[in-house]
Amino acid sequence: MTHPAAELPLGASEFTSESGAFTSEFDRDTAVIARTDDPFVFDTEFSAGWTIGKGVNGGYLIALADRALGRVLPHRDPFSVSAYYLTPSLPGPAVVRTEVVRTGRTMSTGQASLFQTDDDGNEVERLRVVAHHRDLAGLTDDVRTSATAPALPPVERCVGAETAPGGVFGSKASNGLIDRLDLRLDPATVGWALGDPSGKGVIRGWLRLADGRENDPLSVLLATDVLPPTAFDLGLNGWVPTLELTVHVRAIPSPGPLRVEISTRNLAGGFLEEDAEVWDSADRLVAQSRQLAKAPGRVR
Amino acid sequence: MTHPAAELPLGASEFTSESGAFTSEFDRDTAVIARTDDPFVFDTEFSAGWTIGKGVNGGYLIALADRALGRVLPHRDPFSVSAYYLTPSLPGPAVVRTEVVRTGRTMSTGQASLFQTDDDGNEVERLRVVAHHRDLAGLTDDVRTSATAPALPPVERCVGAETAPGGVFGSKASNGLIDRLDLRLDPATVGWALGDPSGKGVIRGWLRLADGRENDPLSVLLATDVLPPTAFDLGLNGWVPTLELTVHVRAIPSPGPLRVEISTRNLAGGFLEEDAEVWDSADRLVAQSRQLAKAPGRVR
Repeated sequence: MTHPAAELPLGASEFTSESGAFTSEFDRDTAVIARTDDPFVFDTEFSAGWTIGKGVNGGYLIALADRALGRVLPHRDPFSVSAYYLTPSLPGPAVVRTEVVRTGRTMSTGQASLFQTDDDGNEVERLRVVAHHRDLAGLTDDVRTSATAPALPPVERCVGAETAPGGVFGSKASNGLIDRLDLRLDPATVGWALGDPSGKGVIRGWLRLADGRENDPLSVLLATDVLPPTAFDLGLNGWVPTLELTVHVRAIPSPGPLRVEISTRNLAGGFLEEDAEVWDSADRLVAQSRQLAKAPGRVR
Repeated sequence: MTHPAAELPLGASEFTSESGAFTSEFDRDTAVIARTDDPFVFDTEFSAGWTIGKGVNGGYLIALADRALGRVLPHRDPFSVSAYYLTPSLPGPAVVRTEVVRTGRTMSTGQASLFQTDDDGNEVERLRVVAHHRDLAGLTDDVRTSATAPALPPVERCVGAETAPGGVFGSKASNGLIDRLDLRLDPATVGWALGDPSGKGVIRGWLRLADGRENDPLSVLLATDVLPPTAFDLGLNGWVPTLELTVHVRAIPSPGPLRVEISTRNLAGGFLEEDAEVWDSADRLVAQSRQLAKAPGRVR
């Protein structure tokens, strides 16, 4: 299968920035193509560019699924998105099957399932997503939050991929994701990379897409699941597979870098929750998420 | 339609306590009856006993939906349950349609939709649920949580429904739910009932089922959504309809009262998140939940 983006006309507004010329990596790699015989089914390809090891990043997958939902629902912006991870996604062709569950005046609800075909030719479901959509630009400006943005050192004093001590971002060869992101972690939260995890279960940093694409509600979904896992800061090492991830997108992000803080309080019974807060450059809390994940067994 | 519980043989283990004789209100009112021609479809009735005003409580609904999932999945305990609320549920007959999404050795995934029939005879979907199930008794005892149980005064110094100042639990006539619960709120978190909300957005209390039924993973789902809404403590008054609720059940509760604390940090754009933590008598965090809800417009 050719990459779906190759079939897209350049200049299509969904895949370009406001200048009309630039196609971002994120938009290209989450593109979905509606089938002519069924506009609720989309062909796509999970890009090897968004992998960690052999697996495809869960935040990338939820964004891709929600992009398809934005096509079939009358409201384009994700408002609440819940993803149930079923089987490991691999780079390669995939199909998104969507369902319009309910449409209302201000909010609509949809479901999307991502499928890949196994070696025997059977469709295997990777991820099931249910989501409420609405027009986030139509929300009121009333904000009475007691949440405060994470205190981060300036970007230039944070730890980027190019200056990171070994282990912060894993082996570059096994991690396509790091080339897609401009992620700069608070040095106070990377002690684990030097063998000295804080034990607090908190990691935070500045985040932009590496190619300079500004953030929108879709990329905010991605942002909730791309930092190194909090388990590392709890002194554990290994895979932390996500079982379930729910994101509430609370506002359209302003241009500029995001600040993302992830935290874990309850590691118990072999599982942990990981909460993410995503803040924009205007100090608005643009997304809150929680995931349930399997804790790695190995001590770091 | 007769109440489904009336058709159940007394002594069926699912609807009795360990003594084998007692049928709890919660088990009776969340009972689901599989159709003989399709074991994935269940008939039920939303009980007027679990209402607030005209609406049926969202925690009750998620528990009822998950009870049906426990019948069709190989793993009976809810582990992660996400509910998308679509239309207001009313007391009366309902149908639960379930789907087995995936079964694995240690975890299985299902989907359930609750439907009611409108005046024109059309089935209307009330709630869509996706859930991972597993055997919670099989989880390891490893606990490394940094979460701490809420500090509550002894039960006898908390505010019960019978001693509550007007407004804590609403009018009894309009609130069947209060008769089902033995809920005793921390006096420090009920100032709003006396016109003096703290503004912190936190409410906590002791919770048992009024008829003495001990808690299990199903009733823990209920427990995440039965306290008066945090919006009251933020100085707002009125309905706080839930749009989405995800619960992670992290352990089987020990016998005895639960402690439940709900909190809101981010009231913005007319919506708020409400997080619940449910602790058991053995000081284990047995559930974590988050819901997205519409904020009431009226100042209290």
